[in-house]
Amino acid sequence: VAVVVHGGSETTFGYDRLVIATGARCKRPVSVPSAQSPGVFCLRTMEDGFAIEAHIRDKKPVSVLIVGGGYVGVEMADALARRGMSVTLCGRGVLGTIDPSLGEIVIEELGRHDVHVINASVTGVTGQSDDLGVSLSDGGIEKAEMVLFAAGVEPSTELSRGAGANFGESGAIAVSRGMETSVAGIYAAGDCAETWHRLLERSVYLPLGTSSHKQGRIAGENAAGGAAEYQGTLGTQVVKVFDLAVARTGLSDREASDEGYAPLTVEVSCPDCAGYYPGSHQMRFRLTADSRTGQLLGAQIVGDWRAQVAKRVDVLATAIHHRMRVQDLEHLDLSYTPPLGTPWDPVQVAAHSWMKA
Amino acid sequence: VAVVVHGGSETTFGYDRLVIATGARCKRPVSVPSAQSPGVFCLRTMEDGFAIEAHIRDKKPVSVLIVGGGYVGVEMADALARRGMSVTLCGRGVLGTIDPSLGEIVIEELGRHDVHVINASVTGVTGQSDDLGVSLSDGGIEKAEMVLFAAGVEPSTELSRGAGANFGESGAIAVSRGMETSVAGIYAAGDCAETWHRLLERSVYLPLGTSSHKQGRIAGENAAGGAAEYQGTLGTQVVKVFDLAVARTGLSDREASDEGYAPLTVEVSCPDCAGYYPGSHQMRFRLTADSRTGQLLGAQIVGDWRAQVAKRVDVLATAIHHRMRVQDLEHLDLSYTPPLGTPWDPVQVAAHSWMKA
Repeated sequence: VAVVVHGGSETTFGYDRLVIATGARCKRPVSVPSAQSPGVFCLRTMEDGFAIEAHIRDKKPVSVLIVGGGYVGVEMADALARRGMSVTLCGRGVLGTIDPSLGEIVIEELGRHDVHVINASVTGVTGQSDDLGVSLSDGGIEKAEMVLFAAGVEPSTELSRGAGANFGESGAIAVSRGMETSVAGIYAAGDCAETWHRLLERSVYLPLGTSSHKQGRIAGENAAGGAAEYQGTLGTQVVKVFDLAVARTGLSDREASDEGYAPLTVEVSCPDCAGYYPGSHQMRFRLTADSRTGQLLGAQIVGDWRAQVAKRVDVLATAIHHRMRVQDLEHLDLSYTPPLGTPWDPVQVAAHSWMKA
Repeated sequence: VAVVVHGGSETTFGYDRLVIATGARCKRPVSVPSAQSPGVFCLRTMEDGFAIEAHIRDKKPVSVLIVGGGYVGVEMADALARRGMSVTLCGRGVLGTIDPSLGEIVIEELGRHDVHVINASVTGVTGQSDDLGVSLSDGGIEKAEMVLFAAGVEPSTELSRGAGANFGESGAIAVSRGMETSVAGIYAAGDCAETWHRLLERSVYLPLGTSSHKQGRIAGENAAGGAAEYQGTLGTQVVKVFDLAVARTGLSDREASDEGYAPLTVEVSCPDCAGYYPGSHQMRFRLTADSRTGQLLGAQIVGDWRAQVAKRVDVLATAIHHRMRVQDLEHLDLSYTPPLGTPWDPVQVAAHSWMKA
């Protein structure tokens, strides 16, 4: 491998085993002429973060337009609105990782905090400096003093391409469950590589920090002579948006259907703790299982950020890991106290609702 | 069955199947002469609660002495301190359901909220009205304007005794996993009955609302001709004490040892969310597994009440339900976002710590 040390000369290192962990980089859905660059940002690296921070400190922009309604988009909408900026979020929907009925709750929460959501894609950056803006697929132009691209990531794969490794359909590096690429002795892990999906039983591109950590350990162990095997992702994920936590695990109804399952999905509202207890909120829960076998396939929850949404999804992730049936969820001995839950946890309330559907 | 309707005459009903759900009542560790009864309370029923509420409203006591440091004791200490009362908690330790190193954290939290904890048992009630107090095993007398007994419960079993049902060693009604008593056609469920323990594979007396709900459904289903079987408790429980949540599932180290396991327990402190995120706290975690096989046996967590302590214990309850090994916890795909967790969840941090121990 040839390594160029920052600002220095090229050095070549040999290796017995190589682990590629080159990560991913921001997608830019439109090209941005360099003349327009001041005030236009991505957010991926620490340097990106420092640049955004410096720009806000020095230029004091009062408005920002965020391109993309995924996790980074909504988290930055939250962060910048808290700093007092006027925030507009442009994208084809918000949080495409959850179903639209739950996405509506997130859009309401954004609205409650004065984040303006525009349901259109961005076709280009217009103007510059004091006249900066973006053109939209609906023909409009939206002005803002700062533009932030949060339109997803793509794997950084140049190094592995040079090494002759194969790629999956996703464009990420194809790896075995031992995290080895198609080239013996070369491993890849993290956002540059594909991820084994435990339910789909095939590789997908699902760049998440949790999977990256697991893959990195396995690649490292195997590069050092081990024989560890990645047990697979369920796509478990959570994001906090103002006062909401939004979490999912497994497959959505549509994803399950596309994979040949016969999914049945129920959506229930239930209190996140005893209804009489101060601070009780409704939690919205979608539960998906195969209607023929009852096999649990997925869950999505939106609720107050103090309502243990993330770890309730984790109970389901643990259940799906063990290929539990929805009928068996009611047998789980889950904890209860009035300030923090209900005698049948929402996980079980959703299961009861599914069984009646 | 003979039924006396409240204040009315006796009526006799026949039955094909009978479900006994007579619950439990407060233990009174000392007898209280009726002359001292004003100002002396138990808390079990709604009527108990109304009586306490009326006494506080009418007599405006400024001090209360709570007998017993279990769940009801610490919850009432929390509730009455919030109402501005001077609270003293007397008992042999606080929250005996968790190990002493975690119990210390709860005692500190009580102290931080001006609850005075006396480590002694109560031998009697002294004086009355304005001179009310309790005598202690250490010879002292502690005065208070109100005394609340929260010294645990005992099963209410008179009805089943009349029916000829057998009792377990615990004194609660013995039942099959179908919730049938020793008398065919008579079922019992809830705090009057014993509970099948999934890890111990025998019946214990562990009166908890969560198990009662499950048992009630099974008794009802089977009384109606079904063949449902209780899948067992793990003793999962949680309590909120001021700003702390305190949860456990499975067996403690000592309980596991008494049962013939070879337990190994680790105790770790880890952040409940990304350390750089505002509001991050340390969470204290005890994880117990069998040192020979790695089989998960139990967990105890104390942390901030917003730190998803209860549902983190539930992830472990779900794992123990499936007889997972501690080595396999790191493969669980648990959710992560900086405001709500860490890339390796505390559940997995504890597991890593166990594997290194």
